[in-house]
Amino acid sequence: MSFVPLRDSYGTTQLVLNRTNVGGSETIPSVLADVPVESAVLVQGVVSLRPEKQRRPGPAGDIEVQVDGVTLLNPADRNLPFLPSDTQNLANEELRAQYRYLDLRRPELSANLRKRSQVANIVRNVLNEHDFVEVETPILLKSTPEGAREFLVPTRVATSTRGSESSPTQEPLFYALPQSPQQPKQLLICSGGVDRYYQLARCFRDEDGRKDRQPEFTQVDLEMAFVSWGPRTGDSDGWRIGGHEVRDVVETIIRNVWAKAEGVQLPAQFRVMTYNEAMSRYGSDKPDTRFGLEIVDVKQRLPLDAVTASRSTGTTIECLIVRQSRDASFIEAARECPAEGDVVRLQSSAARASECINITPENVGSWLDDSQATARSGLKAAVPQRVGDNVDTLSVEVGDVVWLSERRDPPEGGSTALGRQRLRVAELAQTRGTYTPPAAPHFLWVTEFPLFTRADPDKDFLAKGRWTSSHHPFTAPMWQDIDALYDGRVSEVRGQHYDLVLNGTEIGGGSVRVHDASMQEYIFTEVLQLDEGERASFGHLLHALKCGAPPHGGLALGFDRLMAILCKTASIRDVIAFPKTSVGTDPLFKSPAPVSISVLSQYGIKPR
Amino acid sequence: MSFVPLRDSYGTTQLVLNRTNVGGSETIPSVLADVPVESAVLVQGVVSLRPEKQRRPGPAGDIEVQVDGVTLLNPADRNLPFLPSDTQNLANEELRAQYRYLDLRRPELSANLRKRSQVANIVRNVLNEHDFVEVETPILLKSTPEGAREFLVPTRVATSTRGSESSPTQEPLFYALPQSPQQPKQLLICSGGVDRYYQLARCFRDEDGRKDRQPEFTQVDLEMAFVSWGPRTGDSDGWRIGGHEVRDVVETIIRNVWAKAEGVQLPAQFRVMTYNEAMSRYGSDKPDTRFGLEIVDVKQRLPLDAVTASRSTGTTIECLIVRQSRDASFIEAARECPAEGDVVRLQSSAARASECINITPENVGSWLDDSQATARSGLKAAVPQRVGDNVDTLSVEVGDVVWLSERRDPPEGGSTALGRQRLRVAELAQTRGTYTPPAAPHFLWVTEFPLFTRADPDKDFLAKGRWTSSHHPFTAPMWQDIDALYDGRVSEVRGQHYDLVLNGTEIGGGSVRVHDASMQEYIFTEVLQLDEGERASFGHLLHALKCGAPPHGGLALGFDRLMAILCKTASIRDVIAFPKTSVGTDPLFKSPAPVSISVLSQYGIKPR
Repeated sequence: MSFVPLRDSYGTTQLVLNRTNVGGSETIPSVLADVPVESAVLVQGVVSLRPEKQRRPGPAGDIEVQVDGVTLLNPADRNLPFLPSDTQNLANEELRAQYRYLDLRRPELSANLRKRSQVANIVRNVLNEHDFVEVETPILLKSTPEGAREFLVPTRVATSTRGSESSPTQEPLFYALPQSPQQPKQLLICSGGVDRYYQLARCFRDEDGRKDRQPEFTQVDLEMAFVSWGPRTGDSDGWRIGGHEVRDVVETIIRNVWAKAEGVQLPAQFRVMTYNEAMSRYGSDKPDTRFGLEIVDVKQRLPLDAVTASRSTGTTIECLIVRQSRDASFIEAARECPAEGDVVRLQSSAARASECINITPENVGSWLDDSQATARSGLKAAVPQRVGDNVDTLSVEVGDVVWLSERRDPPEGGSTALGRQRLRVAELAQTRGTYTPPAAPHFLWVTEFPLFTRADPDKDFLAKGRWTSSHHPFTAPMWQDIDALYDGRVSEVRGQHYDLVLNGTEIGGGSVRVHDASMQEYIFTEVLQLDEGERASFGHLLHALKCGAPPHGGLALGFDRLMAILCKTASIRDVIAFPKTSVGTDPLFKSPAPVSISVLSQYGIKPR
Repeated sequence: MSFVPLRDSYGTTQLVLNRTNVGGSETIPSVLADVPVESAVLVQGVVSLRPEKQRRPGPAGDIEVQVDGVTLLNPADRNLPFLPSDTQNLANEELRAQYRYLDLRRPELSANLRKRSQVANIVRNVLNEHDFVEVETPILLKSTPEGAREFLVPTRVATSTRGSESSPTQEPLFYALPQSPQQPKQLLICSGGVDRYYQLARCFRDEDGRKDRQPEFTQVDLEMAFVSWGPRTGDSDGWRIGGHEVRDVVETIIRNVWAKAEGVQLPAQFRVMTYNEAMSRYGSDKPDTRFGLEIVDVKQRLPLDAVTASRSTGTTIECLIVRQSRDASFIEAARECPAEGDVVRLQSSAARASECINITPENVGSWLDDSQATARSGLKAAVPQRVGDNVDTLSVEVGDVVWLSERRDPPEGGSTALGRQRLRVAELAQTRGTYTPPAAPHFLWVTEFPLFTRADPDKDFLAKGRWTSSHHPFTAPMWQDIDALYDGRVSEVRGQHYDLVLNGTEIGGGSVRVHDASMQEYIFTEVLQLDEGERASFGHLLHALKCGAPPHGGLALGFDRLMAILCKTASIRDVIAFPKTSVGTDPLFKSPAPVSISVLSQYGIKPR
């Protein structure tokens, strides 16, 4: 008797082979011995329960098959590029990407695809039960005049003319692939034909290679009509904006996913935090709340004169303290965490540089007075002898590590220097093994973002120095800030936007939308100062609002990122069947690829 | 008391208004009278059951609301482009397309979107229950050297060089949008990581405007591993090819859709017909079997000498008879059905012209002898005195209408002259009101297509006179015809292909695939005579077959067409939220659109 493992897409089954002849001098073991590994075989036999001790986990772990016959359905080459079963010696990523169909034989990847399908199914079931209608929106959509970050699709179907009337020239016309179905879904809800829309939507972004971004990605996209502009009466958990109907649905989706796919019961409601609180306490608009290391605003503890001095510069001073006594998991990492070279990098970004101070018997009383931040902010000059006195309420002790930083106040952008430092300390602690994140997922809503910003380098190529929408120009202001909006106090206007954060990763975001055409027009014209050409691409949406559109709001979840977290992998490529590399190439299909001049000419274009 | 109808996405609710004051001199009726039609309003009140006699069909037809308060949420312009509620005077199609968000307020369109979502859900549930895994495949895929019928997507992410080594030039690279996920899904199944795949897949085809085609469309796409190469033991309903596992799943899907969305129980198995039978009896490879008017092969009834004469020309003679006595619904239409002008058109197509003969007392005995078809085929010359004698077994009577036609034998292509004539007669009879198609859907599998063809004008631009695959080059031959394949008797090889036909419309098609790499290579090289460049784009698939791929097969259902039939509309545009016109433009989003030279230059292209 001998044993052979047989793999299928569900796992591995134990085959039990007897040495009985199957024809001539051949026995089943001798037949199977000749079959190249990774071949497709048909096995016939009797399934039986394995002895209790030999049962293994997995769907086929408790059975074995007494084999009566084996048929070779399709032999594998004896020279495969690599053996997917050899998980101890994984082939390099490039080779695995080129032969993705071999790599997908690894049970991990196969299980990821299965889980992705399961989760998509759970999401759809929740939405169907809540009367959402699944609607497909166009992938061949409109190219905007700027055309930035959009993929273009040349067409043969239509050309327009330009040039003088006497000698018109043909102009090639293009579709563009949507970065998200934002406009179609709003138009759909404006139509009133569908009250609740959803779609697992493919989206496209033509970005310069960013690590772990894909040029095509999937969103769980939803939108609801008749969404409120304020919290539910009686709710007092910090959700002070509208859109609680969307919040409820999304929390129900997530709770169902974790209950059914993970066996984890999540709380009835997720925690809520304002943008200002998230930026002040965690230095991030998507804070990782699984650990403490909260940032402390030093200004609050300084004498009034110092506060005034600081306020006049539009900044505040804050510190991140890793305490030897309380933060045992992090203290060693804090002491080793990159400092100087890092500070330089920080200085080039929106937030100010941070400064690291190791507390010693020598500086325990004077560390704040001696700090560069104090010097730079003018605090020391203003109140030289009194700074240190009050700071002892921070109870800093010898052996602690402190980072001090000056930052814009109110906060802006997505993170502060101390927020990034906090994450680096935690990451290093995790690498060193002194800190292990808790198994329980930490969900968090972040709300009350500034509606407009000048601090988003990603958007500045379009904004050209003007105010730009923090998220998109359709987000509604909080009703409390409508006066500020019309008074031109642009920086004070908070939006009815909500981000869903999981373990420090933004997995979704959405908002209540503007449904009042005149308010939308005011935002386009007066705040964002769009010119006529820029406004034209929003013309149909403005008109749809004028047709009695219901108030509405929605959200999109990043499905690839969500699945990567659920599959406990760092790379979204592990949850996509045929992903592209970080520079957008596909080594399996060998795309992108050149196209002949004659084909291009059908589209009215040629190489430059 | 007064009454006002309130429309939402589910239907219309009756509002009952009392004349009580709501503030100042205003009453609810006076407030509502000022609200422009199509505005969004919030109505508060008490829901009550309507008196029995006043109940109407629809979800809100049996209730009314005693209104206590009305809030105007968003007023509509008083000058809308058209009123969607005025279904008696529909605005013209162009205007409705431009303001699609208004047109979607029509209950018919709204109900279509809802039904589409419901059916998608039923389809997914069946597939999930049968262990299918939903997998998303790339939309940014590989452009093939020919590039025909594919949309291209220029990229910035990579360029390659061509030209001489000393002066390399940058060459723009392109993705292409998939016409179907055929290669990704086969690679997925070859991987063994997933045994059963499905996806509601968006597909793209850059065709010159064809009526009722969309440049993007949706398929229910599925593929299964370990599919048989022959029928199930004991099955004897005409399914003589492999892939009955796929057939079972698809029939289960369709049965569930009709049961749950239509309340109609379909038979346990659908009818099966070979391509040869469909072409011979109905003159179509997607026959409408809801009515008779079957075509009769006259050759079978002619003397042996005539048969020999006909066979030597590779043709046969057949006739379509509409009988006054038996085909009462069709006889008038048959007498009026276009003949002469039409014959000219038919002559330009693959099949031969048809000839119409009205049977009169004068020609009832001699119609066949006197016909052009008989003359042209040489039959009359061969056996002048005997032709008419045998044909009286057709029992043609005075008042009947007969079309005679010569066609290729064995049949080729998608339809014959008589097949098209048969449909025109039925269409005219339906227009005249003498024929009403039965309510019950007629499903039919058509199998045993020729694996290769030279008669597909759609494919000739790539084939350039060579043999081409009737469907695609991965379709397996019937095992009975493998010898013919390797012997070079190409025209005799039948494929393991199956089309699903509903009421004369092809709603899906698929096949068992070749899983033997050497057979696939033989087909590429020896039969299709692909050159090296053409073969290169299939290289990864060939290699995947060599890695021990399981036997596999699948199918794709045209979801838009299926939905149009279920929604009883002639146009697929009525089941798509934001469709394009027949020339591929989108009057709502105003796409396609021009793109600036500077944006194009980022992609290494410029207008020609």
